Amino acid sequence: MQKKYGKFYGVGVGPGDPELITLKGLNVLKSVPVVFVPVSREGKDSYALGIAERYLDFSKQERIDLLFPMKKNQAELIPNWDRAAEKVLEVCGKGMDSAFITEGDPFFFSTFIYLYTRVIKKVPRENITIVPGVTSFCASAAAAEFPLVHGEARLAILPSVYDMDKVEEVLEKFDTVVFMKVNKVLPQLLKKIERLGLKNQLVYVERCGSGEERIIRDPEELKKLDANYLSLMIVKKH
Amino acid sequence: MQKKYGKFYGVGVGPGDPELITLKGLNVLKSVPVVFVPVSREGKDSYALGIAERYLDFSKQERIDLLFPMKKNQAELIPNWDRAAEKVLEVCGKGMDSAFITEGDPFFFSTFIYLYTRVIKKVPRENITIVPGVTSFCASAAAAEFPLVHGEARLAILPSVYDMDKVEEVLEKFDTVVFMKVNKVLPQLLKKIERLGLKNQLVYVERCGSGEERIIRDPEELKKLDANYLSLMIVKKH
Repeated sequence: MQKKYGKFYGVGVGPGDPELITLKGLNVLKSVPVVFVPVSREGKDSYALGIAERYLDFSKQERIDLLFPMKKNQAELIPNWDRAAEKVLEVCGKGMDSAFITEGDPFFFSTFIYLYTRVIKKVPRENITIVPGVTSFCASAAAAEFPLVHGEARLAILPSVYDMDKVEEVLEKFDTVVFMKVNKVLPQLLKKIERLGLKNQLVYVERCGSGEERIIRDPEELKKLDANYLSLMIVKKH
Repeated sequence: MQKKYGKFYGVGVGPGDPELITLKGLNVLKSVPVVFVPVSREGKDSYALGIAERYLDFSKQERIDLLFPMKKNQAELIPNWDRAAEKVLEVCGKGMDSAFITEGDPFFFSTFIYLYTRVIKKVPRENITIVPGVTSFCASAAAAEFPLVHGEARLAILPSVYDMDKVEEVLEKFDTVVFMKVNKVLPQLLKKIERLGLKNQLVYVERCGSGEERIIRDPEELKKLDANYLSLMIVKKH
């Protein structure tokens, strides 16, 4: 008898270093017959696939690309997420198990959440498993040997599009602040950090764990940097 | 010729499920001749060891326990951290490689930071490697299928001893708030969350991924709970 739905896994493959995948993620990826791969252009490999490809075998597993072009406005991607969810539901509906790969952790600033919220409306919760992953901010802190928080410290994590007017307030009230995807706001952000006297208490990390990883602590060097999208800055007060 | 210092690894073994260790963490644990294990009492196994023990072989690897009794005041543990650092330095000084195991991630609310800050004063940075791990809050969100943050959302992570007077302000300014180790403040915290009209937008997770994991969404059930130390609550506004 065919089961009604296959299992659907959201697998966080970690931030960049293929060795930072979890055993659980690896076991899922090796076991599923279908792998959903987010790509920004047709025929282009994804960052997530760059991390996970050594664990996959597309001569035996079906690869289904899901197209998500780079858009400033996430709302423009709604038709893409709808189409992606349809493809996942089609595979699930055949009783086939599948996994969607995503860099970092699936529920932490991952667009996987848009897919999950659609799929969960149709597929029973027990058929969906989220495999957590190492986040880019933890891996960046580890690579830079920059301890994040301990004891009574408070941590804030802000996305790139964060209102720049509130940066001072957050840096005042929190011990450590992680600014995600800082590439577009780097000069502005650095000015604020300098004004607060924190320019020697920061680290910038780009494409952590990949072959192109960059770790920069010098604000002067950062000011001249052509920063990558997969970047973050950690600022620590004490 | 004997090398001057051995390598010292801080390995995050993940939050509880042994399968959530990373490949990198696993490879380090299998390769080192010496493993440092944090224990709260002599002869007692640690939570971190409970996660990692299946990957270790103490017939071939030396186990060195480091004693950290449960203390309210972390300052009382300073002599323990000093002694622990001495033991690590002794092993490093012999040119032997070693690893310290810690639950979750080594630089995220881990007492490993106290050890790291001591060891780094004596051992060259290139001899120390931090292996990041899956944090309890990501694993809890995954287990509870409770997406954390996406898009422009802001995340705050507060320790248990956080000033309760500021909870409302943080919940007002952030989209998602993680309260770490909530066992002692649970009734107070629930009252505040109820007053803000957020009682149906929370999840409590205890000992995530272990055999004793509990996931509770009902505030009434939480009010009566004898909560465990390894617990957290996630509250999401939208």
